[in-house]
Amino acid sequence: MATLKRWVLRRRPVGEIQPGDLELVEEPIRDLNDGEVLVRTLYLSLDPTNRIWMSDQDQYMPPVEIGDTMRGGSMGVVVQSRSDKFKQGDVVNPGMGGWTSHVVADAAMVFPVRQMPGVPLTANMSVLGGTGLTAWFGMCDIGKPQPGETVVVSAAAGAVGSIAGQIAKLKGARVIGIAGGKAKCDWLTGELGFDGAIDYKNEDVGAALDRLCPKGIDVNFENVGGDIMDAVFNRLNNYARMPLCGLISTYNDPDRPSGPTDFARVLMHRINIRGFIVTDFLPRAGEAMAELAPWVAEGKLKWKVHVDQGLEGAMDSLQRLFTGNHDGKLLIQVSPEP
Amino acid sequence: MATLKRWVLRRRPVGEIQPGDLELVEEPIRDLNDGEVLVRTLYLSLDPTNRIWMSDQDQYMPPVEIGDTMRGGSMGVVVQSRSDKFKQGDVVNPGMGGWTSHVVADAAMVFPVRQMPGVPLTANMSVLGGTGLTAWFGMCDIGKPQPGETVVVSAAAGAVGSIAGQIAKLKGARVIGIAGGKAKCDWLTGELGFDGAIDYKNEDVGAALDRLCPKGIDVNFENVGGDIMDAVFNRLNNYARMPLCGLISTYNDPDRPSGPTDFARVLMHRINIRGFIVTDFLPRAGEAMAELAPWVAEGKLKWKVHVDQGLEGAMDSLQRLFTGNHDGKLLIQVSPEP
Repeated sequence: MATLKRWVLRRRPVGEIQPGDLELVEEPIRDLNDGEVLVRTLYLSLDPTNRIWMSDQDQYMPPVEIGDTMRGGSMGVVVQSRSDKFKQGDVVNPGMGGWTSHVVADAAMVFPVRQMPGVPLTANMSVLGGTGLTAWFGMCDIGKPQPGETVVVSAAAGAVGSIAGQIAKLKGARVIGIAGGKAKCDWLTGELGFDGAIDYKNEDVGAALDRLCPKGIDVNFENVGGDIMDAVFNRLNNYARMPLCGLISTYNDPDRPSGPTDFARVLMHRINIRGFIVTDFLPRAGEAMAELAPWVAEGKLKWKVHVDQGLEGAMDSLQRLFTGNHDGKLLIQVSPEP
Repeated sequence: MATLKRWVLRRRPVGEIQPGDLELVEEPIRDLNDGEVLVRTLYLSLDPTNRIWMSDQDQYMPPVEIGDTMRGGSMGVVVQSRSDKFKQGDVVNPGMGGWTSHVVADAAMVFPVRQMPGVPLTANMSVLGGTGLTAWFGMCDIGKPQPGETVVVSAAAGAVGSIAGQIAKLKGARVIGIAGGKAKCDWLTGELGFDGAIDYKNEDVGAALDRLCPKGIDVNFENVGGDIMDAVFNRLNNYARMPLCGLISTYNDPDRPSGPTDFARVLMHRINIRGFIVTDFLPRAGEAMAELAPWVAEGKLKWKVHVDQGLEGAMDSLQRLFTGNHDGKLLIQVSPEP
């Protein structure tokens, strides 16, 4: 009898994730009902928001229940079908397939993956997937950088940040990225065309912002929170926009983070802070893809994917998001591409 | 020789305004040059933002310089004119005329005041002046209440808050006001048609919000900051809007206030916080007046004006804004209406 492996949430982590918070279990794959497909996971997406879902803090989706498979975006291949919609070998997006080697899914909730010629399949989980959409909507719908404006992106070498910054460049803005370490900063300025990069691990962020943003900051694409957010916030210009995409520096804290230290700046400088979650924008995905796909095809948008091998290492892999020990989009390859 | 009296800023207040921070001086009125008018002040507007201008904190206009006349909005009557634009007896708005009994002004910077029949002249300094515009743009351009949504207004019996809440009612929303004392709360629910009022001096604001806003809060028209802001913020719904109009509870603090305690809520609930200053909207004033003027003419919008007599008492009068010892728009009558 065929089996699957899946990670089950056993208890809610307190602070950093500990062994035993999740457990890898193996169990038989059940028979398909009519209208269902069996999908073998190819790639699993690891995202900062995974840590939020493990907690029971107030959040934008229900948390993962104790005893349930850990939630996560994935891509897979149909290995068995009892639906007219899909046949064996089809590459599909089973939605929140989760941290599992296989998933039995209602074919109505599964979507075909369209591969762009000459572009790796993993692009559909990064620049042409939720990552690209997050960057595009946050930057274009909320940040709205104008030619000549100054944009700062935190976690700029991360999956979303690296794309968000390039989008702002394509819109004609001056873009400064904040990232951890010289190699990442060199990638931002050398490969991605950022106008400047700040290594928050080795320099004073405020002083570097003063040097690199002499006209102040018009858009803060915020991914991290905490002191770095404050340093950028305190240099926002009149009418600045702050798309709030994430607060990763705070996700392992038991306490939720407080707002900008100098909140009166929002009033004095007429700042617009707006939190967003990409799922809200999915009905408008076509708008974003109409720009993202040609940029990818024309080589105007670059991206990196860091692929760890094997579902077994998922807990260790997830830690890379908090240590920064990866480049760009973090994926686990769960099984070989067809 | 004719003289004028004016309040001069002598030093920047630390905390509450103290005697000696401003000084009332009397001096000769200078002769007019061509194109100038002499305006006798009728009414002086006292606003929370006056306290900001006295400080040298980062703000939306340059602070008042030490030795300069205290800045303030006013209305006056032309008593002498060397301009074709105005004749003696014209009622005018000399812009930021300041805390002065008379002002010599460039006629190009002076605007006629149009009195609506049957409406007191002071309405031009409240519901049909900057106060009404502030309420309208904050509520309609940023808050955007939809029929059936729940709106909370802090400092709801204040000049702006009382109008902002009524506008939200006219737009079909459910409106809860927060004010200090039973009389103000009774005015909100009894006269202005608010759906509920919370007396922050005598009840727990959070508990009252839970009782009065069982479906959460969609718009927070924020005037005060601090604990009251936090109580409202912590109950904001998904996609809530928070026009940030003022932070009066914090203006006497030497330290600037910090943001919402639970900032992650902005992200989780996709909240939009936007600071605004009415002066930014003046080019669009016509849009607001097109709604405000008919509402006033039809008796759909009510307002209160608290008029203290005499420029000499300006410093004491200003304290009313911080103690709440007034109703609605706070004015000083500097000289009799013509």
